[in-house]
Amino acid sequence: MRFRVDPLPRPGAYGGTAIVVDVIRATTTAGLYLRAGAKALVLAPGVEAARTLRREGEILAGEVGGLPPEGFDLGNSPREVNGVVGKTVVMATTNGTRAAHAAMGARHILLGSLQNAQAVAERAAEIGEEVHLVCAGKEGQMALDDLYAAGVIGKRLKALGLSPEGEMAQLALFLAENPPFSVLASSEAAKALVRVGLGEDVAECARVDVHGVVPRFLGMRGEGMVFGG
Amino acid sequence: MRFRVDPLPRPGAYGGTAIVVDVIRATTTAGLYLRAGAKALVLAPGVEAARTLRREGEILAGEVGGLPPEGFDLGNSPREVNGVVGKTVVMATTNGTRAAHAAMGARHILLGSLQNAQAVAERAAEIGEEVHLVCAGKEGQMALDDLYAAGVIGKRLKALGLSPEGEMAQLALFLAENPPFSVLASSEAAKALVRVGLGEDVAECARVDVHGVVPRFLGMRGEGMVFGG
Repeated sequence: MRFRVDPLPRPGAYGGTAIVVDVIRATTTAGLYLRAGAKALVLAPGVEAARTLRREGEILAGEVGGLPPEGFDLGNSPREVNGVVGKTVVMATTNGTRAAHAAMGARHILLGSLQNAQAVAERAAEIGEEVHLVCAGKEGQMALDDLYAAGVIGKRLKALGLSPEGEMAQLALFLAENPPFSVLASSEAAKALVRVGLGEDVAECARVDVHGVVPRFLGMRGEGMVFGG
Repeated sequence: MRFRVDPLPRPGAYGGTAIVVDVIRATTTAGLYLRAGAKALVLAPGVEAARTLRREGEILAGEVGGLPPEGFDLGNSPREVNGVVGKTVVMATTNGTRAAHAAMGARHILLGSLQNAQAVAERAAEIGEEVHLVCAGKEGQMALDDLYAAGVIGKRLKALGLSPEGEMAQLALFLAENPPFSVLASSEAAKALVRVGLGEDVAECARVDVHGVVPRFLGMRGEGMVFGG
């Protein structure tokens, strides 16, 4: 069984299992909302879409320039995941949602981060199909942080018996030999957070193997993608 | 002063100093032809172009599928650089020449490899302009081996006081923390050489800082780019 790494999403190119990675911060925070007790997540392709998708009693989460927009309950920070117990969180993200949409042809779509690296690798290995690590990137550009996280998950897939296929999988694996915080902190995504005073989110996203919650795609709600734990 | 890394050549995008990197094998072997005593190199965009550009008494070097074509004297192997003393070598390469052409707007064009990593970094630092590490890639795809070599040269530029600019420079620097042979051997370029029995070329290309010859662009001969040491 094999795994591949895509530095950028290739819409419609996937079968088997896709692990979507937008480590700063969408897929990290998505896992933490579920871990904090959220019933489900709805990934919305933007702030307006999230407002439309939200039903009564649900939590609105999203960010513009790293901060929660007007009327939103949460700002997609991995350090602010309270008040979600038993509720559905409608989460507006741009790059992460775009990558999840691109993965739509896959039979299984999981959200991966450093925090659930071992857990998502094990889940994918159990499913037993070819694995695609789909990096979200940032506005159409490859992102260092996502490739790194794909490499860390890839190392665990390899340890579980899957073989890296293609040069980008090798690149991600070599990148993963570096320490998480120093790599993540060098990314443009991290620098953008530091600029708006959210530098501590980077340290949170850089924590490896801290929980076992793996968001998985359940179905659509309008243009939103619903994930459960 | 800054340096950037381009995973693929961007034709016409360069000013300052461009260091072209096609580590398996074009820029490695180019340095070795000059080091072995060649008077000059002419980089030709293909086998037919090289045949046309060659003048009497000059050496023809090139490869198709890793091996010298009919009538060629040398096969672009870094382990076969004899018989070139005092002669001009007309060298057919595909990706390396394409990258060198892309760099044409730069004021200085140098050829970089692992073997001359320290030397090419010092030369670029002496010139004192912004540095672009231009990775050749392989048929329009990013190549692990070139990004790695760019990272190794980048580490030396950094030690000489230049600052990495942009996420790809950071990626290359983190990649460069891995040992040269294991990275190069994982590249598609290396695997293609192994398939035609030239696996030992990979070990030769993976030698770091072994000489001080830095090919630099002197001017055009028809569609060929002339380099001297």
